[in-house]
Amino acid sequence: MRRWHGDGIYFGGDYNPEQWPEETWSEDVELMRRAGVNLVSVGIFSWALLEPTPGRFEFGWLDRVLGLLHDGGIQVDLATATASPPPWLARAHPETLPRRADGTILWPGGRQAYCPSSPVFRERSLELVRAVAERYAEHPAVVMWHVSNELGCHNVHCYCDVTAEAFRGWLRERYGDLDRLNDAWGTAFWSQRYGDWAEINPPRSAPTFANPTQQLDFLRFSSDEQRAQLRAERALLKTLVRQPVTTNFMLGMTKHMDYHSWADDVDLVSNDHYLAAADPQAHVGLAFAADHTRGVAGGDPWLLMEHSTSAVNWQPRNVAKLPGQMRRNSLAHVARGADGVLFFQWRASRAGAEKFHSALVPHAGPDTKVFREVCQLGADLKALAEVRGSRVDADVAILFDFEAWWAVELDSHPSVDVTYTDRLTALYGALWRAGVTADIVHPSADLSGYRLVLAPTLYLVRDADAEALHRYVEAGGTAAVTYFSGIVDDNDHIRLGGYPGAFRELLGVRTEEFFPLREGEQVRLDDGSTADVWTEWLHADGAEVLASYTDGPLPGVPALTRHPVGAGAAWYVGTRLDEPATDRLVARLLDEAGVRPAVRVPSGVEVVRRRDGDRSWLFAINHTDNEVRVPVSGTELLTGALCAGELTVPAGEVAVIREDRADEPA
Amino acid sequence: MRRWHGDGIYFGGDYNPEQWPEETWSEDVELMRRAGVNLVSVGIFSWALLEPTPGRFEFGWLDRVLGLLHDGGIQVDLATATASPPPWLARAHPETLPRRADGTILWPGGRQAYCPSSPVFRERSLELVRAVAERYAEHPAVVMWHVSNELGCHNVHCYCDVTAEAFRGWLRERYGDLDRLNDAWGTAFWSQRYGDWAEINPPRSAPTFANPTQQLDFLRFSSDEQRAQLRAERALLKTLVRQPVTTNFMLGMTKHMDYHSWADDVDLVSNDHYLAAADPQAHVGLAFAADHTRGVAGGDPWLLMEHSTSAVNWQPRNVAKLPGQMRRNSLAHVARGADGVLFFQWRASRAGAEKFHSALVPHAGPDTKVFREVCQLGADLKALAEVRGSRVDADVAILFDFEAWWAVELDSHPSVDVTYTDRLTALYGALWRAGVTADIVHPSADLSGYRLVLAPTLYLVRDADAEALHRYVEAGGTAAVTYFSGIVDDNDHIRLGGYPGAFRELLGVRTEEFFPLREGEQVRLDDGSTADVWTEWLHADGAEVLASYTDGPLPGVPALTRHPVGAGAAWYVGTRLDEPATDRLVARLLDEAGVRPAVRVPSGVEVVRRRDGDRSWLFAINHTDNEVRVPVSGTELLTGALCAGELTVPAGEVAVIREDRADEPA
Amino acid sequence: MRRWHGDGIYFGGDYNPEQWPEETWSEDVELMRRAGVNLVSVGIFSWALLEPTPGRFEFGWLDRVLGLLHDGGIQVDLATATASPPPWLARAHPETLPRRADGTILWPGGRQAYCPSSPVFRERSLELVRAVAERYAEHPAVVMWHVSNELGCHNVHCYCDVTAEAFRGWLRERYGDLDRLNDAWGTAFWSQRYGDWAEINPPRSAPTFANPTQQLDFLRFSSDEQRAQLRAERALLKTLVRQPVTTNFMLGMTKHMDYHSWADDVDLVSNDHYLAAADPQAHVGLAFAADHTRGVAGGDPWLLMEHSTSAVNWQPRNVAKLPGQMRRNSLAHVARGADGVLFFQWRASRAGAEKFHSALVPHAGPDTKVFREVCQLGADLKALAEVRGSRVDADVAILFDFEAWWAVELDSHPSVDVTYTDRLTALYGALWRAGVTADIVHPSADLSGYRLVLAPTLYLVRDADAEALHRYVEAGGTAAVTYFSGIVDDNDHIRLGGYPGAFRELLGVRTEEFFPLREGEQVRLDDGSTADVWTEWLHADGAEVLASYTDGPLPGVPALTRHPVGAGAAWYVGTRLDEPATDRLVARLLDEAGVRPAVRVPSGVEVVRRRDGDRSWLFAINHTDNEVRVPVSGTELLTGALCAGELTVPAGEVAVIREDRADEPA
Repeated sequence: MRRWHGDGIYFGGDYNPEQWPEETWSEDVELMRRAGVNLVSVGIFSWALLEPTPGRFEFGWLDRVLGLLHDGGIQVDLATATASPPPWLARAHPETLPRRADGTILWPGGRQAYCPSSPVFRERSLELVRAVAERYAEHPAVVMWHVSNELGCHNVHCYCDVTAEAFRGWLRERYGDLDRLNDAWGTAFWSQRYGDWAEINPPRSAPTFANPTQQLDFLRFSSDEQRAQLRAERALLKTLVRQPVTTNFMLGMTKHMDYHSWADDVDLVSNDHYLAAADPQAHVGLAFAADHTRGVAGGDPWLLMEHSTSAVNWQPRNVAKLPGQMRRNSLAHVARGADGVLFFQWRASRAGAEKFHSALVPHAGPDTKVFREVCQLGADLKALAEVRGSRVDADVAILFDFEAWWAVELDSHPSVDVTYTDRLTALYGALWRAGVTADIVHPSADLSGYRLVLAPTLYLVRDADAEALHRYVEAGGTAAVTYFSGIVDDNDHIRLGGYPGAFRELLGVRTEEFFPLREGEQVRLDDGSTADVWTEWLHADGAEVLASYTDGPLPGVPALTRHPVGAGAAWYVGTRLDEPATDRLVARLLDEAGVRPAVRVPSGVEVVRRRDGDRSWLFAINHTDNEVRVPVSGTELLTGALCAGELTVPAGEVAVIREDRADEPA
Repeated sequence: MRRWHGDGIYFGGDYNPEQWPEETWSEDVELMRRAGVNLVSVGIFSWALLEPTPGRFEFGWLDRVLGLLHDGGIQVDLATATASPPPWLARAHPETLPRRADGTILWPGGRQAYCPSSPVFRERSLELVRAVAERYAEHPAVVMWHVSNELGCHNVHCYCDVTAEAFRGWLRERYGDLDRLNDAWGTAFWSQRYGDWAEINPPRSAPTFANPTQQLDFLRFSSDEQRAQLRAERALLKTLVRQPVTTNFMLGMTKHMDYHSWADDVDLVSNDHYLAAADPQAHVGLAFAADHTRGVAGGDPWLLMEHSTSAVNWQPRNVAKLPGQMRRNSLAHVARGADGVLFFQWRASRAGAEKFHSALVPHAGPDTKVFREVCQLGADLKALAEVRGSRVDADVAILFDFEAWWAVELDSHPSVDVTYTDRLTALYGALWRAGVTADIVHPSADLSGYRLVLAPTLYLVRDADAEALHRYVEAGGTAAVTYFSGIVDDNDHIRLGGYPGAFRELLGVRTEEFFPLREGEQVRLDDGSTADVWTEWLHADGAEVLASYTDGPLPGVPALTRHPVGAGAAWYVGTRLDEPATDRLVARLLDEAGVRPAVRVPSGVEVVRRRDGDRSWLFAINHTDNEVRVPVSGTELLTGALCAGELTVPAGEVAVIREDRADEPA
Repeated sequence: MRRWHGDGIYFGGDYNPEQWPEETWSEDVELMRRAGVNLVSVGIFSWALLEPTPGRFEFGWLDRVLGLLHDGGIQVDLATATASPPPWLARAHPETLPRRADGTILWPGGRQAYCPSSPVFRERSLELVRAVAERYAEHPAVVMWHVSNELGCHNVHCYCDVTAEAFRGWLRERYGDLDRLNDAWGTAFWSQRYGDWAEINPPRSAPTFANPTQQLDFLRFSSDEQRAQLRAERALLKTLVRQPVTTNFMLGMTKHMDYHSWADDVDLVSNDHYLAAADPQAHVGLAFAADHTRGVAGGDPWLLMEHSTSAVNWQPRNVAKLPGQMRRNSLAHVARGADGVLFFQWRASRAGAEKFHSALVPHAGPDTKVFREVCQLGADLKALAEVRGSRVDADVAILFDFEAWWAVELDSHPSVDVTYTDRLTALYGALWRAGVTADIVHPSADLSGYRLVLAPTLYLVRDADAEALHRYVEAGGTAAVTYFSGIVDDNDHIRLGGYPGAFRELLGVRTEEFFPLREGEQVRLDDGSTADVWTEWLHADGAEVLASYTDGPLPGVPALTRHPVGAGAAWYVGTRLDEPATDRLVARLLDEAGVRPAVRVPSGVEVVRRRDGDRSWLFAINHTDNEVRVPVSGTELLTGALCAGELTVPAGEVAVIREDRADEPA
């Protein structure tokens, strides 16, 4: 388990003092102290100021900032400042500019206008890392290092010639010789066979669908190129500094970085998360992102590096947070394993692209709902210091693989309505509504500790991972697999002989043909459910049939099956069940697996338990408009109230109870 | 009439053995024999394998494949293999890559990444044709040659500099001197007058609408460039081989190739057709495509080169075929003149962009609905051998001109809701529902054999063709013309003096102004019809008024007219009638023209008659969910059953009756 | 006040004789005389004909055209002919072609394919101006010069390297040194600080949102570059000719040219206006455009340089004008200050991109509704000759600033539903329905003559303009400001301390946070109104609260306030009121300000008064389907009828009454 520096819960955010006149800085530190801020991230976008012309560094202002912070008792997460290169880089080296698939050059003016495979960028960025690290390695304010920022957020896929050369190198590494590549990519079709490495390019704009394995490998390569920047910076830092190193992931926000593979490249996992403002149920998405971050961190505590006090600026309609909502959001992250709650950014900008992004100090100043809630949150987190380092109870695992995501959403598939996160979020939502916490883990994770494993839309699956799931069920586990899973191997080659290939034996079914539904088309099942998007001509081959279609293209064909395997059972969901049917299905699975919620609470109340040895804390977050009663005994930490058997949580409020006697994990 | 080699009906599909290990090939031949396959297309995408590096040919694997097929009694349609160039071509000659109007280069990775005007591509492809033809000219399995594949499917419009030079050459050929071009393009407006051929380019991205005649000529040129590849390959083949030569058209699938002009460049017309999966009535579109293919073939039998056993992979939702549907589709093609039914492809790929395209042998293997239906179809086609070479009865012609399509859908027109195929498919649908077969022919076709001629949306029409329609009516024919027809000549110049220009005299009407309707706006007619999209300020000028508007912008103005001309009559439809009104209109036209259906059957049953001398065959395809009775006497070929006066066709089934005494053509 | 040559009202249009054989020209002149045409614009797109190869001019045809027109008594607005360069320019100087933000080159084929910053284009165009002006300076037909045509219509934003260099020059001029630019653009964020002018580019395609002030300055620069062409041509003309010089603006049609800043660069303001065909209330938009043109002209008479007799060709569905509609449109422009009514174009083209654009002489010839109405209009305008030179009564001003428009619609804002013209047209519509005429003026205009000033969505406002509005209210004026006004200064920097920054004190409110609504979300107010799109957490800070929310995110928070300031009052509208609530609000504002309509008429009747000294003319345009009675006394000029106390205006008709005794301005 990763262990990182510090006491209590981190609280703070990105601090960009360079946007303000120096006289503002003292007020900043004073307000930070008032709010209880104890950690700020500094220097993230400061490259152009720190190195105003190539090779000339100016650290004076940063010295003064760090000094002020240290004097105020504020700790610093110091950025390597490589997040976005200064304009001089593009002028001196135009070949560092990234290109879209259609050849469009992406210019400076926003941020991250660099080709991730550029050796020039790598070299210049590492020179900066060295300069910053050498200067501040021993600075007493610095407790953590922050590599770049949201790596790959805007420049993950570059199609330029420099990238092409790097892609060829990556492919040589992966395949060794061209025959293996031709085989893996299936180039025998459409006259694509490569006779020379130099003939290979990224999947640039083409007259029609590009080769899917070429596309998939390019997505893998692109994630690896971003990771390579992280690894290079961290490797250099490790020679110069002693503090832990992190970079902010974007779990729940991006499809493009395979963070499961990145986890070992940071000393602590940190994540950025923003609500989808259009969605009134966005707090469920938040819970998913938090559980996924914890899954990536292997269950260890992690850091919420960025979220927002209220609205952001980059969505179509940037809905503000209602009173109490920021607190619920923040404490939900803590409930799900975060040992720190940071925000973008300290003070709302008066200029630039993000000036309408909320901050800890709004444009209107401290006499605002936002800043008052910030101060309240500072006090809350102080009261929760003891949970730091504890872990989260979870009996359910959901398998998640970025490569499966990439592969299943390539073009030329049976139905555009089959997307990776659709069933994932449907099943997760059902668990959330049931009060059950899940770990979101990679298919290669150790499953032995879970009572229930869900594999939604695991289109691409490696042999070893499919076999591990089989062994898990044989050993007594319960598993459920949804449609369009197990279809291809990691070359995106069909597993022949009937679908769902890799899971056919486990599930005891054999599908001979997919029957995707038309847009808006619905079917009914004989258990009263409705479904849409997908049906398939499935034969039960050992499995018992739990429900079949009564109409649609395949009346009488099984839709839902259960296959006893060894000491366990494997369920298959062959269609896209509606939400009530998904809730019923999940209830049956939980029941069969013997999984119980943290405590039983009314709908709309989020309950999660953290645990450390024999101590445990129950988080109860009331998202409803009514007060609710939570069956629990112990000390409520935010108020100091004692409760015996039951605690009343008012509408919109949060309670964190140090439990008198932790229930055994359900 | 074109006559081509072979007995009975061809049955088979694209065979791509290079995607599979050689040990699979024997199983392939064995399964082909089981299914009754007698023709496969081989080598279509094999260029990169046949010529792995420039100038070095490897035929060994193809020798073995052809040998195995011949041993198994399977005939071969051998591809020239030029469909898609190997990656080495683009590397050695980057100028062969096509470009979009905005300059985007289209790279290898999919297929057909070549500029159709490239002399380098032409030269290299003809070298391949020569090598393949020299090697296999006398191979006993080869009964047909297949030039390229779906020419122009993905690369029909290239805007590169090589194309620009070719376009200028084509224009010089067409216009001789610049004054004529300036005149034809109307360059006096917007300061577009050209003073030098070198100033002319394809209609690349421009600040606003490009010159419409420039656009139209570019579309003509682009079709001609594809055709030039066909002609060049065929001309070379003719010096080397004796078997008939074809290439697969895409009638019903593309707007871009003027196949009416291509018909003389093949020894037999063949076509690819795929259902529009979103449309539950896609079998009507199938019928249209088949009738169009026959029209292009001048009424001769033709070959269905590709369709699908079930779903395809390139539509948004690739709906599978229900049991029986593939058979109905296949036999509908035969009913409408196909003497062969082939599929893409023999065995479903395990890799590549088309791996989710259905095949004769699915991923799940032969123990499937699909393969069982394939075997059934093989038997069916064998039972229908005698219809080969017969022709299809049709008393109605629908005029179709790709140039009119191109022209009417250029920008800057009165209404975006006026599209070429809208009224075409509306009128065709009404005929289909009435059980009446139509030939889809070019306006220059001989119309004398038809009782009724429909001219939907014939926006662009040549003088000679307009005059021919006039003579046809004078001689006793019935014609109907829909709105926005006869508007321009072949330079896209307005025919002045009132619309519909070329047909004003024929129709006895004069329109002074178009009144397109707003989106969703409807109008009513005094015969109870409703209509939308289009109205016009029409004056009856000799024509009798059959219906007028009662509301909308033009109350009281005529909407539907009939003009007696010589021994016939010409109808004009000035608005977009709803479906029931279109059905009523078509019923009146059929009645006036004395056209009767093949036989009278309930709605949803497709009936077509093929005839050879005094023999005739009635095809009855029951698309409904109920059994129907068809008034016919003779021998049902699929079952061998005799029928006298009436035949029962079960729901979803097909019957083909060799009629005892052919009725005279209605 | 600008005074320009001529008697009576101008009537005519663009005349493009080069599209027709010379024998048509005499018929043209004869028909012009029949219609009463007295002014035509000639030569607008004639560059390629006048200078067929570089430096060789051919004026013969134009000599003949001008001669024929002069002989026929038709006056000429002669174009400098620089609107669109000939194809030879792009061939000789490919660097003159404009580029999109993504680098796409825009080619000849349409019109205006030139980079507006090109020195080559400038030089060649001025040579043409010199040649044309020298030849025709003294031509007796020429009464006006027409610089270019719709400057910037299709090429306003170019991103090429030539433009980049010009942009840098413009920025140097604006900012003097880089520090000021870095400050204005807020480059301290996202590592954007510039160390050298050469690092700066137009806001080309970037990985994410480009710097907003960079975007805003580029929009300013782009308008200035177009204006520079106008100024250069006019400056040269002034050395060669004596007639007044104009160019046709596109107020109501474009966002991109800051015409308020252009007004001093023309001797008379002229404008093009086309109806939005999809909008049945497009005549309200017409009125707005006319009032805006008058506002740009400082209240002086202006010229309607282009509109259409019926449909245009460039909208999706080009709805034709109903009988009477063209007359109502034309006279509405005159009512609102136009002293001339011209059309695009004289004769409908038979070829080219605009052949489906209506004209004075349609394809169907003179025996048409259109030409008959043209002749009627010619007679009408003759009867109105006496109004020429009079001005329009208006007691209300609406503040309009193109820079505010540009700034408020940049990316990364709180809600995409907040657009500049939304509240502008909502308030204008309420005034129109109330029969009240408004001037649309720049915020820097003298407001002292108005009783009511509206400031809708004035997101960006300069200090001086905000202060002027404050002084206006203090002095007794009534003002109303809508939400998202006063937010930023002219660098797009937030005005800190609470919204709406610049107007906080004037309005007596302080908003601490925006609460944009979700798509489709509605809220209710305690005065019964509904609203959507926008709410904000507003504190009354001296203002009285007129209405508050009863639901939504902010129940109980004020939505509508009124703040007495000095002798006047300032209202604030914090949400997007529905149409009835907007009408009620405007009625209260008019009442408080003491503004009355020209006369009281039923809904749907447009009334405007022109005045010259003690003479006045009341225009009444009946847009309804019923006759209406207008309370007025005087002489109706179109019919010559006298009326005393009341005039009946039939459905769809127009009346213009020379009033016996002008009422004092309301």
